[in-house]
Amino acid sequence: MGKIKAAVVGYGNIGRYVLDALEAAPDFEIVGIVRRDASNVPAEIAMYTVVDDITKLGKVDVAVLCTPSRSAEAQATKMLALGINTVDSFDIHTDIVKVRTHLDEVAKKNNSVAVMAAGWDPGSDSVVRALMEACAPNGITYTNFGPGMSMGHTVAVKAIKGVKAALSMTIPIGTGIHRRMVYIELEPGAKYDEVAKAIKNDAYFVHDETHVIAVENVDDLLDMGHGVNLSRKGVSGKTQNQLFEFNMHINNPALTAQILVSSARAALKQKPGAYTMIEIAPIDFLYGDRDQLIGRLV
Amino acid sequence: MGKIKAAVVGYGNIGRYVLDALEAAPDFEIVGIVRRDASNVPAEIAMYTVVDDITKLGKVDVAVLCTPSRSAEAQATKMLALGINTVDSFDIHTDIVKVRTHLDEVAKKNNSVAVMAAGWDPGSDSVVRALMEACAPNGITYTNFGPGMSMGHTVAVKAIKGVKAALSMTIPIGTGIHRRMVYIELEPGAKYDEVAKAIKNDAYFVHDETHVIAVENVDDLLDMGHGVNLSRKGVSGKTQNQLFEFNMHINNPALTAQILVSSARAALKQKPGAYTMIEIAPIDFLYGDRDQLIGRLV
Repeated sequence: MGKIKAAVVGYGNIGRYVLDALEAAPDFEIVGIVRRDASNVPAEIAMYTVVDDITKLGKVDVAVLCTPSRSAEAQATKMLALGINTVDSFDIHTDIVKVRTHLDEVAKKNNSVAVMAAGWDPGSDSVVRALMEACAPNGITYTNFGPGMSMGHTVAVKAIKGVKAALSMTIPIGTGIHRRMVYIELEPGAKYDEVAKAIKNDAYFVHDETHVIAVENVDDLLDMGHGVNLSRKGVSGKTQNQLFEFNMHINNPALTAQILVSSARAALKQKPGAYTMIEIAPIDFLYGDRDQLIGRLV
Repeated sequence: MGKIKAAVVGYGNIGRYVLDALEAAPDFEIVGIVRRDASNVPAEIAMYTVVDDITKLGKVDVAVLCTPSRSAEAQATKMLALGINTVDSFDIHTDIVKVRTHLDEVAKKNNSVAVMAAGWDPGSDSVVRALMEACAPNGITYTNFGPGMSMGHTVAVKAIKGVKAALSMTIPIGTGIHRRMVYIELEPGAKYDEVAKAIKNDAYFVHDETHVIAVENVDDLLDMGHGVNLSRKGVSGKTQNQLFEFNMHINNPALTAQILVSSARAALKQKPGAYTMIEIAPIDFLYGDRDQLIGRLV
């Protein structure tokens, strides 16, 4: 059987790590990279075909979308209509059902498959949450993020007047509640008190315990490590106090990229339609002989 | 839509907890209990039909097998041939692939579904192991059991001459290595030193650190709590040191029973054949509207 022909769409932070994961996978070949500006080819991808439109790549089995969440739906729609399977890490939780419904329609019409929201949250965390509910249907699950950088919160801080550079760290303090540690470089002349107040009153921060710290150089603090603690205390049948916990400490873009690639593999095993990770059998994400996987993992 | 008609096959420790889980589930009805001796009807199941053969129950959608692992294959084969879906918690890891292959054949021929090895290990732990490999394909996963009672080891101790009653506890000491804490009541006249030596030389114990403790009353020590710590340190793409961990502390038969019932629900959503839990989409184990589940869990 031939290798899976994958295209990487978008070459930013996630795209770089997706290339790593595709190169490390035994069952994929990289047919090319799609960038808005195909003449922008950094040395480390000089060995790959870089194009500005996926139709220039010849046969593609699956497009790994590494563009921002906001454009994922449009990108996926276009690829699916071409009969190309897609995988994305769309992470706007509140829009997932709506986007899934739309992509499902497009995919079924064009005999293609979309695996969506395939990162770590949404994504692998969603699978853990579903599994915990299968084990204990009644109870409460808490998802505690961090410590790690929040992209959304960091962007929100950067938009505030007087902020030259920023980093917003998410710190878990239990039961799904988070502290925000915000590190900023001030613009010349900006007053710390005013900027700190504006940050704390921003919609992103107003409901959380937020600390604002002025630093000389935000870049010195950057680290792409992240983590999660998922916990559930629930009831199996009529038996109370069943305790479940999932923890991870990971390089954030590397994990997202690996899950995208594992999901690209899974995409080829589904019937036409759109799927979130909880709708896919876990074995489909893995490379290898089915019986061997069952023998080793079950 | 009508409720799922479930039969409980075997009414021992697991069977009791399966009844609990079926009674607690909103989408099941209990059509009856199958026992070898149908005249043996304890007061707590007097409201249910008890029969000695499943064919006496009328229409059954799914049979929840609560008989010992050794008889699971024969029981499942019989039910599947009748067109009844089955679910079992068969736990002899080394035979799973072989049994699955056989049940798959029988199920496909008779248009029925078997979900097998659906407990917590094999079972939910298998799903976590598969998910961890999807997140980090290279690396090592350790499954650490306990603290909790090992049925197999306890039975092995009871078979040793001079042992009146026994309990073997599994204690995790990391990297998949376990200590065995064996509590025994001695037969009158039996010598502790000889019995302890026989236990430590038994095939079940000879490779593990084993401590034998004589007690007055083993029954006083019994507790059905158990636990697991699953850990993986691995590589996502080319990024090392990705850390994943899953912990649980649970009532052992209650969790096994809940997973059997969640799997009985999943059985009705699969095409004919035999499945381990890693071959089933996690959402299929759950009760509720698909879009609502996706919106809440993804």
